[in-house]
Amino acid sequence: MSAGSAPSRAERLARVALCRLTEPANPELARRVAAGGAEALYEELRSPRGSSAPEAAADVAARLADLDPAGDLRRAEQVGARFVIPGDDEWPEQLDPLTAAEPVGHQGGAPIGLWVRGRLHLAETMARAVAVVGARSATTYGGDVAVEIAAGVSEAGYTVVSGGAFGIDLAAHRGALASHRPTVAVMACGPDRVYPLDHRELIDHIARTGLVVSDLAPGCTPTKWRFLARNRIIAGLSLGTVVVEAATRSGAANTASWTESLHRPVMGVPGPITSAQSEGVHRLIRTRGALLVTRAAEVLEVVAPMGEHLMPDVVGEVRPTDGLRLLDQQVLDAVPISVAADLDQITRHAGLAASSVELALGRLADLGHVRLDQGRWRKAPRCRSA
Amino acid sequence: MSAGSAPSRAERLARVALCRLTEPANPELARRVAAGGAEALYEELRSPRGSSAPEAAADVAARLADLDPAGDLRRAEQVGARFVIPGDDEWPEQLDPLTAAEPVGHQGGAPIGLWVRGRLHLAETMARAVAVVGARSATTYGGDVAVEIAAGVSEAGYTVVSGGAFGIDLAAHRGALASHRPTVAVMACGPDRVYPLDHRELIDHIARTGLVVSDLAPGCTPTKWRFLARNRIIAGLSLGTVVVEAATRSGAANTASWTESLHRPVMGVPGPITSAQSEGVHRLIRTRGALLVTRAAEVLEVVAPMGEHLMPDVVGEVRPTDGLRLLDQQVLDAVPISVAADLDQITRHAGLAASSVELALGRLADLGHVRLDQGRWRKAPRCRSA
Repeated sequence: MSAGSAPSRAERLARVALCRLTEPANPELARRVAAGGAEALYEELRSPRGSSAPEAAADVAARLADLDPAGDLRRAEQVGARFVIPGDDEWPEQLDPLTAAEPVGHQGGAPIGLWVRGRLHLAETMARAVAVVGARSATTYGGDVAVEIAAGVSEAGYTVVSGGAFGIDLAAHRGALASHRPTVAVMACGPDRVYPLDHRELIDHIARTGLVVSDLAPGCTPTKWRFLARNRIIAGLSLGTVVVEAATRSGAANTASWTESLHRPVMGVPGPITSAQSEGVHRLIRTRGALLVTRAAEVLEVVAPMGEHLMPDVVGEVRPTDGLRLLDQQVLDAVPISVAADLDQITRHAGLAASSVELALGRLADLGHVRLDQGRWRKAPRCRSA
Repeated sequence: MSAGSAPSRAERLARVALCRLTEPANPELARRVAAGGAEALYEELRSPRGSSAPEAAADVAARLADLDPAGDLRRAEQVGARFVIPGDDEWPEQLDPLTAAEPVGHQGGAPIGLWVRGRLHLAETMARAVAVVGARSATTYGGDVAVEIAAGVSEAGYTVVSGGAFGIDLAAHRGALASHRPTVAVMACGPDRVYPLDHRELIDHIARTGLVVSDLAPGCTPTKWRFLARNRIIAGLSLGTVVVEAATRSGAANTASWTESLHRPVMGVPGPITSAQSEGVHRLIRTRGALLVTRAAEVLEVVAPMGEHLMPDVVGEVRPTDGLRLLDQQVLDAVPISVAADLDQITRHAGLAASSVELALGRLADLGHVRLDQGRWRKAPRCRSA
């Protein structure tokens, strides 16, 4: 569906209709659309011989009566939103594997289409994207960490995806905005709505400078089901998911599950073990194989194409005495730090033969590690801590 | 060496001598002792045809002149210390694999013997031991965490092993002492010495209630080499090592290396990524496969015999609405939280057929999740947050 000529108007209208016919993340619907196409399925559901299970059929019938796909498209247009579907140039194909992926809870399936606010090209903006998500009730620590990681990831040219919520989501979007890079908010409501209402300004700002997307038609309000379904889009758009603070049972853990289901990397930022907000993250690392990350560079190392962001191995400060031969290191250890000592004293302290110690001291002096001063040896200042 | 009859006096004296002949953790010496026995090796080194390399031979010769093994034993006895060697009933055999393990840096090998202060039986006290180590310049957070984990591990009947140093070591010993359990301090100096001097009272207290051990003869003072060599004994005595706070290049990281070398588990307690003291721990988890642990129970799960300390899987609070069928959960989501709503309102919000919604509300009422009140539905109090 996502290659070749642009989709027809009928295909688009059928997808708008299917979007409304059931709740989002209906794995069965996504599979049937992928197998037989949206137009055919829509026709089938409208016919009296619809092949759904009786209960679902009744739900579908209730919704069919209210359908007005062309009207939905018009309403979306009025709030500056478009409906992007597979086959469109800007469809982000990284969503497609959701249909074959293991469902999470009762949910699954690629979105039937995405309602998109913002002038940027969706697929291009999403070509390199990282999800940064976490607790709504974040701590100052978590917020600071999310800002910093989102900013670093953005500066490297990656788009930060999050859910526009309070706490970590807000901090993640802010970190990206601070880097003057587009960020993407995935909503659990229609394109004409904003949630939470306190974030109207933020969401509108993101729509002007980045993108606001959802798979819910105009007028739809958020429900718990839709929040969880929304998380699959955050995970599905992204190369990997960074969780910054999360309770043990949380939306962020759900987004992590979607990411696992897509076999993409889940990363977690640790925090104090005394913080309930970090418990969920520690659990992801402990029991679900999430990678511990502490900064943007480590995130990039995970999500970037092989070899592109390889980090130098941090081994701590390099010391001038690194690489000394064993004997010389032992003799250097035996030279007192603050006072000078003669050969006898050093030999006794080192517990080595005087002849070996004398030779070692000579080598150490050549390297500038020790100094001979009136027959007594002392450490050179730069070696006092070595 | 560690089974059968008790070692002879000659064997013990030979081991005292070998302890003094070279610096500790000499892998070659440990291998030769393991292969040919201590007595034979001591005789060989004393003979003019000693088979060591020339440089080492000179060092050995320098030390041979001062040897007085019987005197060392007497000096140890004066400070209440005994010399425990393989074959003694109380020799902790878990040290023996150090000789075949991969060396760390230039060091390796099981101790030739251990100088022990304290009335407890060494092997019995060490039968179940966990090392808790970390930065000397610990934060309050790290200290609190070390106390708590050491206390929890102790209360479960495990002996906490550490190095008696400032910071995390001190906190680990304190946590064990607070649980009125013996703790073991491994020193980098002879049994007649204490390091750091500020910890004289602590170390003496540990000697009275637990054990203080080292592989350094009376009179030996600590050096950098000896601190690193000491770490192999901490790791070697323990079923696993918990690192609480560590700089990227630190003694704790060295103890972790010894533990890895013995193929025993390294555990790390995470902390704020903004704390330099947690950097080394995060690095151990990120790049060296250390297990993230957040409490004593998680440590026990790792070190205890299979199945003995299995933890219940923490999945967050269990909610009364867990296990609801999909449709019922969706309908419950559509019932307003604070006000009552009639069937029409709920049906519209749920986007389902009225007949399905009515049936679902009936089931939810039976389960006590919703209540019908003058023709309008409301959530039962316990479901308001579900």
